[in-house]
Amino acid sequence: MVVTTYLDHAATTPARPGAAAAYAEALEQVGNPSSLHAAGRAARRLVEESRESIAADLGAHPTEVIFTAGGTEADNLAVQGIWRARATDTRRGLVTSGVEHPAVQESVQWLAAHERADLTEVGVDEAGRLDLDAFAAAVTEQTAVVSVMWANNEVGTLQPIEQVVEVARTAGVPVHTDAVQAVGQVPVDFAGSGVDALTVSGHKLGAPIGIGALLARRELGLTPVLHGGGQERSVRSGTIPVPAIRAFAVALREAVSARESEAVRLAGLRDRMLAGVRAIPDVHLSGPEGEGRLPGNLHVRVDGADADALLFALDAAGVCASSGSACQAGVQQPSHVLAAMGADDGAARSGLRLTLGWTSSERDVEALLAVLPRAVEQARAAYRPRKKRDVKVGV
Amino acid sequence: MVVTTYLDHAATTPARPGAAAAYAEALEQVGNPSSLHAAGRAARRLVEESRESIAADLGAHPTEVIFTAGGTEADNLAVQGIWRARATDTRRGLVTSGVEHPAVQESVQWLAAHERADLTEVGVDEAGRLDLDAFAAAVTEQTAVVSVMWANNEVGTLQPIEQVVEVARTAGVPVHTDAVQAVGQVPVDFAGSGVDALTVSGHKLGAPIGIGALLARRELGLTPVLHGGGQERSVRSGTIPVPAIRAFAVALREAVSARESEAVRLAGLRDRMLAGVRAIPDVHLSGPEGEGRLPGNLHVRVDGADADALLFALDAAGVCASSGSACQAGVQQPSHVLAAMGADDGAARSGLRLTLGWTSSERDVEALLAVLPRAVEQARAAYRPRKKRDVKVGV
Repeated sequence: MVVTTYLDHAATTPARPGAAAAYAEALEQVGNPSSLHAAGRAARRLVEESRESIAADLGAHPTEVIFTAGGTEADNLAVQGIWRARATDTRRGLVTSGVEHPAVQESVQWLAAHERADLTEVGVDEAGRLDLDAFAAAVTEQTAVVSVMWANNEVGTLQPIEQVVEVARTAGVPVHTDAVQAVGQVPVDFAGSGVDALTVSGHKLGAPIGIGALLARRELGLTPVLHGGGQERSVRSGTIPVPAIRAFAVALREAVSARESEAVRLAGLRDRMLAGVRAIPDVHLSGPEGEGRLPGNLHVRVDGADADALLFALDAAGVCASSGSACQAGVQQPSHVLAAMGADDGAARSGLRLTLGWTSSERDVEALLAVLPRAVEQARAAYRPRKKRDVKVGV
Repeated sequence: MVVTTYLDHAATTPARPGAAAAYAEALEQVGNPSSLHAAGRAARRLVEESRESIAADLGAHPTEVIFTAGGTEADNLAVQGIWRARATDTRRGLVTSGVEHPAVQESVQWLAAHERADLTEVGVDEAGRLDLDAFAAAVTEQTAVVSVMWANNEVGTLQPIEQVVEVARTAGVPVHTDAVQAVGQVPVDFAGSGVDALTVSGHKLGAPIGIGALLARRELGLTPVLHGGGQERSVRSGTIPVPAIRAFAVALREAVSARESEAVRLAGLRDRMLAGVRAIPDVHLSGPEGEGRLPGNLHVRVDGADADALLFALDAAGVCASSGSACQAGVQQPSHVLAAMGADDGAARSGLRLTLGWTSSERDVEALLAVLPRAVEQARAAYRPRKKRDVKVGV
């Protein structure tokens, strides 16, 4: 068996041993945090201690932390929840970027199709950075909510959240940001950022899959998406998952504590990887160079190769990489992110995303660079440009 | 420290060691099941094997299993999802019972308040059993969806699901049932039951909190509640939580395999508990006696006592019990279930729920019966009938 080189940390990163241990320990206690008896109170204590820890690590107040099943649910709660709380007959605007994660993009498109939201997806430049002039023109008093991600999940581009907040605040519009990829990689301070709602996911930080949070200012109106027992200040019902929350708090603490040194270390590995990848002819960096992108993200387009063939060849050589968002892996569509950045259909199908995380090492970079030239060769040999009519949306 | 006697398994039951081990093992593997590479495929295999196991244990086809964060999300997806897929200008009916779990009750009430659903909450008899005549009268071709729970979470009453299905089928209306309390306690066969959608939760069976499923027939129209990457046949987006799903499959298998013998064992313990409880004057069984209720559920009303005071006294004596649904513990409201069963305000505040599970033993029953008489005495001594105006809804 080929030893695996894992370069897909943006899709999910290995669970941290500390988080796994915290999970296992919490799982040994029985107790529904909503129960009033001793077992329930003990469970509630674990939840509230974790909530405080998470809030402290993200510059939020504990009451601003709403636990969800993950980033997707938090994005849905933010977009649908703020929209439904604020939409009126004359205030039906929704403004996002054209490079949002599907959890935001599909949510806003659903609201546009079914709840008469007036959606504007603002364009980005070649590096994937929001067009601030167009954004400022789109946001008005008729806008119910703005959602712009902190950092892109495919190409790692950091968005100008400070300016987004400035523009939105002037118009009196609340801002949501999906910070799933940003937390643990760049400084994220909820209060300091001025955003009204922020999505964070556990499993991108080394917690198990299945836990996340929406940070939301107390005064922000938020209509629940999931109705029921009234947990999480009646905004998100469902039994509170104690062990996952404990693991989330531990993973976040580890990720945030190590962030500064890890950012330097991962950027160093990434730049070595980039230099090696660039030695292959006709391979182009997507997104910004150096500053302006996540330290753990490298994304390139490989001319004359289909991402699927390239990933297949890499996989056979023991390297786990991706073309873009894992959520859409297997979907034979060009990346909407690369397309928004101006790539044509062929280029939008030739993306290779290589993402680093807390377990990444020089060995991974070396292993990749040892097999990538041959994999590119194989993918290029198999390449056959697609006709437009081959594209089936949604397949 | 007082040794705890845990009699609140309906709120949540201890994680089974096999489920905890399966969780820990799966957590050691990295991989997003939506990724195409080796790590992703290994994760996907774990998910699909678990899906098959869960489907087999519940009489469903694997493609009918939609994983969710738990029972509440599954209930919301069923009620909101079927409603939105089927509602038309002339078909706006929603029919449920008056004793549903808050996840269903709050969902249908939200749809009535915000999406012009025409809601009928059908009454129940003194034992909490659906009034079938009223139900049959309420269900028409104008009904978009019916939701009636399999077994009640407070008093354990089994509902006549077979007749519910018969009535709904005649009118061409799909049926959802919340079977969270039923699975593992009574036989639940999805295909055999004829329902179109069925909610199951992991942590009531010995899996961790934070995983559940909606079983939904393939041909059932279901509008997503959570939009995004398109996981779970595009009905429920969000990264698929591999370890929780593994643990869910293991816990369900253990619960279903042991069900028959456990039902006999737990009913025996419960009947001993009932006999002991009845020896206290002015204590009345709620819900049906013997058959017709869950084997692990005992629910009584204690005349002249407030549930909160009684639970406080029991808790001080080392017994964890509840008044009704844990989701609403701490909410100073009479039980809507007991009220629907005809209890007046005082009686609806005097409920004591004692629920058994896989770790329950004679020792628990003895421990309860040793302290209950004194606890009832204390609660009765502290009793002060409330005035109507003390009731604040939603506090």
